[in-house]
Amino acid sequence: MTGAGLEGDPDVEITGVSAAETARRGDLVFLDGDGKAAPQISAETSALIVNEANIHNVPDGMPRLVSALARHYHGVVSYALFHPRHETWSGETLISPEASVHPTAIVSPGATVGPGASIGEGTVIGSNAVVGPGVQVGRHCRIGSGASLVCALLGDHVRLLAGARIGEPGFGVTAGPSGQEDVPHFGRVILQDRVTIGANSCIDRGMFDDTIIGERTKIDNLCQVAHNVVFGRGVVMAAFGGISGSVRVGDAARIGGRVGIADHVRIGEGVNLAASSGVFRDIEPGETWGGTPAKPLRQWMREVAWLQKHANAKKTT
Amino acid sequence: MTGAGLEGDPDVEITGVSAAETARRGDLVFLDGDGKAAPQISAETSALIVNEANIHNVPDGMPRLVSALARHYHGVVSYALFHPRHETWSGETLISPEASVHPTAIVSPGATVGPGASIGEGTVIGSNAVVGPGVQVGRHCRIGSGASLVCALLGDHVRLLAGARIGEPGFGVTAGPSGQEDVPHFGRVILQDRVTIGANSCIDRGMFDDTIIGERTKIDNLCQVAHNVVFGRGVVMAAFGGISGSVRVGDAARIGGRVGIADHVRIGEGVNLAASSGVFRDIEPGETWGGTPAKPLRQWMREVAWLQKHANAKKTT
Amino acid sequence: MTGAGLEGDPDVEITGVSAAETARRGDLVFLDGDGKAAPQISAETSALIVNEANIHNVPDGMPRLVSALARHYHGVVSYALFHPRHETWSGETLISPEASVHPTAIVSPGATVGPGASIGEGTVIGSNAVVGPGVQVGRHCRIGSGASLVCALLGDHVRLLAGARIGEPGFGVTAGPSGQEDVPHFGRVILQDRVTIGANSCIDRGMFDDTIIGERTKIDNLCQVAHNVVFGRGVVMAAFGGISGSVRVGDAARIGGRVGIADHVRIGEGVNLAASSGVFRDIEPGETWGGTPAKPLRQWMREVAWLQKHANAKKTT
Repeated sequence: MTGAGLEGDPDVEITGVSAAETARRGDLVFLDGDGKAAPQISAETSALIVNEANIHNVPDGMPRLVSALARHYHGVVSYALFHPRHETWSGETLISPEASVHPTAIVSPGATVGPGASIGEGTVIGSNAVVGPGVQVGRHCRIGSGASLVCALLGDHVRLLAGARIGEPGFGVTAGPSGQEDVPHFGRVILQDRVTIGANSCIDRGMFDDTIIGERTKIDNLCQVAHNVVFGRGVVMAAFGGISGSVRVGDAARIGGRVGIADHVRIGEGVNLAASSGVFRDIEPGETWGGTPAKPLRQWMREVAWLQKHANAKKTT
Repeated sequence: MTGAGLEGDPDVEITGVSAAETARRGDLVFLDGDGKAAPQISAETSALIVNEANIHNVPDGMPRLVSALARHYHGVVSYALFHPRHETWSGETLISPEASVHPTAIVSPGATVGPGASIGEGTVIGSNAVVGPGVQVGRHCRIGSGASLVCALLGDHVRLLAGARIGEPGFGVTAGPSGQEDVPHFGRVILQDRVTIGANSCIDRGMFDDTIIGERTKIDNLCQVAHNVVFGRGVVMAAFGGISGSVRVGDAARIGGRVGIADHVRIGEGVNLAASSGVFRDIEPGETWGGTPAKPLRQWMREVAWLQKHANAKKTT
Repeated sequence: MTGAGLEGDPDVEITGVSAAETARRGDLVFLDGDGKAAPQISAETSALIVNEANIHNVPDGMPRLVSALARHYHGVVSYALFHPRHETWSGETLISPEASVHPTAIVSPGATVGPGASIGEGTVIGSNAVVGPGVQVGRHCRIGSGASLVCALLGDHVRLLAGARIGEPGFGVTAGPSGQEDVPHFGRVILQDRVTIGANSCIDRGMFDDTIIGERTKIDNLCQVAHNVVFGRGVVMAAFGGISGSVRVGDAARIGGRVGIADHVRIGEGVNLAASSGVFRDIEPGETWGGTPAKPLRQWMREVAWLQKHANAKKTT
């Protein structure tokens, strides 16, 4: 399937896929990149697909497939092992007989509930919303009109406003033999108790791990939260917030409107980000930053004031 | 229900909720904050929930409940009095027999129309759109595929493109006994004649009053208009426009792409805002502003040019 | 219908509408603006609606209607000739018997497929998605939950995530006799093979020509691509990208998060745009730009660093 030669035990059984650092027995992982930094590789890993540059990083005796397109072929194998359930859900029955809907729950006209999904006590599913196969929705939740959920797990008292998109695959591109390909995503979205997600906002599922939004975090309309992000508890994020992949946001952070955060950045507890900030660096707990690229708010304001003073003074002298 | 002690007439009947300045006979209102600025309180107010800091602002003889979480408990009482109709709309009938649909109107496959809703002459409801309970849609309107409407009132010749979200609750967070809670919203969205709202744009309903978009105002895709905003007539707003709570925008203003306006700001008639402006201050009628924080366009351009000249000259000397 | 006087042959038959430069035999076109720059007018044009300022630009002998609101009345005539099929699609049948759905395709519960639409081999249409009348979807495509398509043509292996809006009319406003009016749109959206469009992103149809997204181009969530844009092959655009009307983007360009590009700008092959760039000028192939207004990345970074140094040094001396 990968066109790659195997080195090592040909009888190893592969039962799952994961990232190298979190692999469990039976998992196939990949290593790509320039191979200069030694990657973390779980000792339980059953096999790897690696590019030439990473062969020296493979532990002795661990079965390996060598391919110039390691990332891509890992995805190809993954799709052969797993098929998303929502891509095989057909027919005319809006509420699957294989779903579990609590008798006190309300499913509005046109809403669909897939096989294996469950809807808790007192929850309301809005008109034309979609609760995909296997999705778990807790008690006393409110799912807005036309919102959709796949690969997701919701606690209690969670509110999704209309058109929210929970659990879509994250955005990632990798090289394939004929050009760029989408990176497959096998994680989930977990929305803890009393989370609110605004209208038309998107929370993408993780690649192998989960995207997690902590208790009582409140997210406004038209926000984007990418794959593998972890938000703490009680975070507030205003409209057009954009959080790139694998960002960590601490408890009780306050994120103003139209703030962007670059991938892998860590935002400490209680951090305040002014509207329109573009954050490219980690921020320590309790700080207040603004501007693009973001810096401590006082410094940003000093620069704005200094520029205003000098640029306009210049003109009159 | 509030755990608060009552001072004043225990027989007052509460029949509604509102903000302090607009209360009518029978309304319960709240006062929170530091109490330093004397709030406007309608003389018709029947009772208040206040925090300690605001007790001195309550008119003599007006019944009061004192609570550290005045805002929160006002919401709790509000929900006990009012229950949004779209949260009790169930069953399999897509077009409610209790809705009024004009014989010349077209309802496309999969669209739903709730009880008490009305659809005017010659209006077209797109496939899988949602017209919630009690929503009024005028004549010759076009509602796009998958758009949704709750708590809304539309004039004639209104056009909503696909996925527009009209009437969702606004974004507000208040302190509750166990952490932050969503602020409830009891207002509506009013879209006047010939308004157009772009694909996947969101217009939130007001908290107690209404969010209003004036005649012939045209809003592009992926815009956000928050609770209690009032737009005048003939405004044009390009994609990714973000208007925070309670902003007022004058007639015929021109708002470029990705403009953000902070809450409570007033934008005069005919104001022009350059693309990507971030507006934090009121702007007088007819002016043209740009930049973040926004300033008069010429000044902003002067600063940009001055910085470019000096930063690059510096390098060569 | 236009209230305008005709000069020229009254027996010319009008069978279509278009822009002046691309008109074919039978087409009615318009000329507006100040008339100073000589417009391109196809020799096959059958008739024009022109304002006073453009009369001198009309080729001798070409039939003309003169109107102060030339653009508007061209739209009025257009609507009299053409009526969008999705505005007459009614009834309760979710999958039209006049649609062509390949036996191996999967249509999930609640999805609708309009008359004249076709769905290719192995394609999956998500729950509550809308495939409008006449829309062509190729083989092995994945259409996400609640996504909608009108006036669109999709190749093979195209993926639309949940809530994507393909083929809505573009954003344009013109003067009518009683105030501003929406400009009608008669083009389509063409998504070539292996294109991916993110959740809640919008690709608007062209005005007369088509909006085109080239092979293997990958677009993230919550992006906006306006009317008549043409993207090359293998472009990557991150979340909140906003591309204004008629922009051209070359093959393999990389567009960071929250980048905006002004209308009619041309971006060369392989250009890199840093996150949050606001681009107002053409960019040559292979360059890397950033900032607002965007400039070469090194220059932008130099200005940021220079300002930071001088604004903060000032303070300590």
